[in-house]
Amino acid sequence: MTWLIAPNISNAKLTAQVSGINERGERTPSHVPVEKALTLYLNAQEIVTMMTINDYPQLLALGYLLNQNMLAPQDVVEAIDYDEDLEVVVVRTQHHTNFEAKLKKRTQTSGCAQGTSFGDLMESLEGFTHAPPVLNTSTLYKIAQMVNTTPSLYLEAGAIHGCALFQGETPLVFMEDVGRHNAVDKIAGWMFEQKQSGEGKVFYTTGRLTSEMVIKAARMRVPVLISRSGFTAWGVELAQKLGIMLIGRVRGKRFLALTGGEHLIFDQDLAYVEEETLKSKRKGAAALI
Amino acid sequence: MTWLIAPNISNAKLTAQVSGINERGERTPSHVPVEKALTLYLNAQEIVTMMTINDYPQLLALGYLLNQNMLAPQDVVEAIDYDEDLEVVVVRTQHHTNFEAKLKKRTQTSGCAQGTSFGDLMESLEGFTHAPPVLNTSTLYKIAQMVNTTPSLYLEAGAIHGCALFQGETPLVFMEDVGRHNAVDKIAGWMFEQKQSGEGKVFYTTGRLTSEMVIKAARMRVPVLISRSGFTAWGVELAQKLGIMLIGRVRGKRFLALTGGEHLIFDQDLAYVEEETLKSKRKGAAALI
Repeated sequence: MTWLIAPNISNAKLTAQVSGINERGERTPSHVPVEKALTLYLNAQEIVTMMTINDYPQLLALGYLLNQNMLAPQDVVEAIDYDEDLEVVVVRTQHHTNFEAKLKKRTQTSGCAQGTSFGDLMESLEGFTHAPPVLNTSTLYKIAQMVNTTPSLYLEAGAIHGCALFQGETPLVFMEDVGRHNAVDKIAGWMFEQKQSGEGKVFYTTGRLTSEMVIKAARMRVPVLISRSGFTAWGVELAQKLGIMLIGRVRGKRFLALTGGEHLIFDQDLAYVEEETLKSKRKGAAALI
Repeated sequence: MTWLIAPNISNAKLTAQVSGINERGERTPSHVPVEKALTLYLNAQEIVTMMTINDYPQLLALGYLLNQNMLAPQDVVEAIDYDEDLEVVVVRTQHHTNFEAKLKKRTQTSGCAQGTSFGDLMESLEGFTHAPPVLNTSTLYKIAQMVNTTPSLYLEAGAIHGCALFQGETPLVFMEDVGRHNAVDKIAGWMFEQKQSGEGKVFYTTGRLTSEMVIKAARMRVPVLISRSGFTAWGVELAQKLGIMLIGRVRGKRFLALTGGEHLIFDQDLAYVEEETLKSKRKGAAALI
């Protein structure tokens, strides 16, 4: 089993070679991820400037708009134009979007066009229901292992977040980015482009399970959200409300399911799961023996 | 030596008690940090809604505006009104700010009021110069130790970033927040309120050394920026241009100075610095024996 898309660590454009002084005063070469500005337009409307490694500007643009509820699943995207020199990506839709209409109104009344309001976002999630997700713990550990053993820009250059999408335990897409949310948004863009529903999917992130992350999972209709990091209280509350299974602190044998834990099937013999060591921890790792 | 301000881990409002299912199927109590929405106004202008633990809404509001170049150091702040029920904080200045004037103009011409443009931010840093910073490695390790041995919400509940400000090796302020940038902004707010210059100060963050982080250090006029995390290429490039000493990957004995390393004074005997262990790593730790 392998990824449909995974970080291209041999792409020299994604990391930069640098040189510094280490703790012994020695000149030391190293790698760091690149970070570029990318300004996003929806038709004629400037939306935001993002900092990104810029490996998939079109997918990032799409996913950002979808996850911010600026683009609806039924909107028809006619073209996504990316200009590398101008650092601009333009998403063109067949018809003007609802968001542009709303934005125009809001700008005229208050002078404030800060993007989608939180209220709008929550409203967009009403009626988000699905069968209660079920997950085998053997699947959970396989997912963690798959992510942790895939070559990544993180292992190469650090300072980068990763996200991965699975269909059950089958790996689909692995994205990384200097912006935690960019990695998620690129996967959302891929799902839209490939007309993939969220049903039966599992989302893994190296980032924390905050309200924003849970809202994005819900926007993507993905019912299971997993992270090696921790939670915020609001993230947990939203996951409870939206029926999302939320599992965090996945490290070695350990994990904590703060919502949906009653639907876990404990089919993994823990004697065959490695504890996290300092070396594996550096890799963000859990491994199956 | 102790902090003027440090995380109040006994404040029950900052963490929530939760309960989940662990890897053995056991019901397990735990703590997570709270995360609240806080909408910021500059006079009558709505600026942004932030997700924060909300321990210092006034300092966060001030620091955000300063670091985004929406408020200039010479602006006179007359009041900061915080309404807990409405989740709103309003910074009121004596005169309308340049930013509000610019924003009005921009909104009228393009309908886009996304806040300070990156160009404006960089322009605000022109003429940012100071004597090349000097740092003793003994100071660096003392700073890391001080941060790592201070009781924190991170140790209590995870999923939170920390920042600390030092005058040389003297600890001043330690802030934490669910938003990486909020912790920095709260310290910027404190510096403004206390009329503290950046001279001779050292800034420590648990977060990555990205372009945004380096720009914030420059806005705060702090010449030394330290992190246990890594770098982005643009962060390094900006630090070089702005004359900021940038030291990352500070873990146990190890560190890497990617800019300004030639001004380090290697006065620490490494035999007396502990290597990072899994236990200390969990604490984000380096310790002096």
